[in-house]
Amino acid sequence: MRICVVGCGAVGSLFAANLGTLDDVEVWAYDVSQLHVDAINAHGLRLVGAGEVVGRVRATTVAGELPPCTFGIVATKAMHTEAAIAATAHAFRDGAVASVQNGVGNEEVIARHVPRVIRGTTFPAGRILEPGVVQWDVRGDTTLGPFEPQPASMDEVERLAAACTRAGMPTHAVPDARPAQWRKVIFNAATNPIGALTGLTHGRVCERPDLRALVSALVDEGKAVAAAQGIELDADPEELIDHAARPDVAYDHKASMLQDVEARRATEIDFLNGGIARFGRELGVPTPMHDTVTRLVKALEDSWR
Amino acid sequence: MRICVVGCGAVGSLFAANLGTLDDVEVWAYDVSQLHVDAINAHGLRLVGAGEVVGRVRATTVAGELPPCTFGIVATKAMHTEAAIAATAHAFRDGAVASVQNGVGNEEVIARHVPRVIRGTTFPAGRILEPGVVQWDVRGDTTLGPFEPQPASMDEVERLAAACTRAGMPTHAVPDARPAQWRKVIFNAATNPIGALTGLTHGRVCERPDLRALVSALVDEGKAVAAAQGIELDADPEELIDHAARPDVAYDHKASMLQDVEARRATEIDFLNGGIARFGRELGVPTPMHDTVTRLVKALEDSWR
Repeated sequence: MRICVVGCGAVGSLFAANLGTLDDVEVWAYDVSQLHVDAINAHGLRLVGAGEVVGRVRATTVAGELPPCTFGIVATKAMHTEAAIAATAHAFRDGAVASVQNGVGNEEVIARHVPRVIRGTTFPAGRILEPGVVQWDVRGDTTLGPFEPQPASMDEVERLAAACTRAGMPTHAVPDARPAQWRKVIFNAATNPIGALTGLTHGRVCERPDLRALVSALVDEGKAVAAAQGIELDADPEELIDHAARPDVAYDHKASMLQDVEARRATEIDFLNGGIARFGRELGVPTPMHDTVTRLVKALEDSWR
Repeated sequence: MRICVVGCGAVGSLFAANLGTLDDVEVWAYDVSQLHVDAINAHGLRLVGAGEVVGRVRATTVAGELPPCTFGIVATKAMHTEAAIAATAHAFRDGAVASVQNGVGNEEVIARHVPRVIRGTTFPAGRILEPGVVQWDVRGDTTLGPFEPQPASMDEVERLAAACTRAGMPTHAVPDARPAQWRKVIFNAATNPIGALTGLTHGRVCERPDLRALVSALVDEGKAVAAAQGIELDADPEELIDHAARPDVAYDHKASMLQDVEARRATEIDFLNGGIARFGRELGVPTPMHDTVTRLVKALEDSWR
């Protein structure tokens, strides 16, 4: 089977490098960084940290070079989904494409360009250390399921999940990936922007009682939007927050949105809180807190201009 | 008459310098900055900008040196009210003390230390350029009225207002200063923290439609808290915001709270949004938006520690 990772940043690299250790899988990576692509082609894609891995990956910045693929795994930042899948869609005319991105709404964008889509959510995290080398910070599970309006077959979902699991990325194939995805997006949307607006690390956001009231209000709105879709969350996002509030877990970890703010990069706010608010509007569920933090973070981004 | 300005920062200096031009008023200033005090005693207190003034002012950092005064004008940042009035209260045993500070709740603090209190609110603004020299940025009116639970006499209020007006600071003596005070605190609380959290100037906060929705939600909560006290605002705070949204008015002006955040100083959030929320709790009026921005700004302050 041939798998193309679209967007070979930190999370994309975790998938590409691990899959690149399998003898029966040909791995491609499409990325906009020529330096990263060149390093991968010269030396392989290397992971350090939670796992020491060097994967064989064929990388390119030129979408036209991609051959037809069995699967795609889109791992760009959410605001780059449209451009990335529009450029690479030709490679997936006979394939199925999964999203392992943050937020909600990515699968809808992908489905406008390719025939069969897999809904996904993933917990592993890392960061690029230098071109071709990625720090694997956190191990974790991935969940994949057919994207309901335009699904890949369950057989395809299972084959992709099995490849990821064999490669060292434990992945569950489920008929309905929405509970796992919404649990994660609610967790992220309830905590990331608070860190981004206050400059506090993930652990400090989760441990403060005054902020926890705010975080829990965001969680409650997210749960209401999930419930209105008939989604029964697989676990309470509050448990993830309790976990992050433990002093040993995330006290010094800056959530990705705070990292974006400190680097003055665009954040994924439109696909986290903005995404929950958009689903809320369509479903008639009010999300005043998500609207508020969305507006604040977007204004913060604009203050750099 | 003898008037002591307690807290001779930018706003306190506007009062002290202007009053210091009157022949029949002896002006004292109490401040914690030895450099500012020494410069005032050596060269007078000088204003530049919206008015060119040099006032005769006797300044001190030693509260015990203050003689008995007819009036006090407290102009510290709101979080310093308690310490400043506790130190200087002996000078006002037979006098009346006015607050011209930001926020709500300052008069209540002052009333714990002196017998007769004047509620006040002021619009002039400036900034200290160097010790003894203050830039007068914005002219504007001041409103004074008896503090209801522990009032100065209306005669005292009128005498202090007349002195300020004669000195070049137009001041209205009114039986009820709450409408003017709440209009200003609602305006400040609806706009300042949004600038502080996003880094946007005052004009940009007021002109953006998405933020205006947030600003107006804060205004609405503030109006409800004012209404629950039986206060009929003298004008709609939204008019102040419309004014600030005009391109020529405040496009480049950073509100004081953003200046505090950029300098990593404590803000007045507890007396602006926190003050409105505290009154709301006592009155049974929910203020979720003010609670939210209070928590975010306090967490932002804590991120510097």
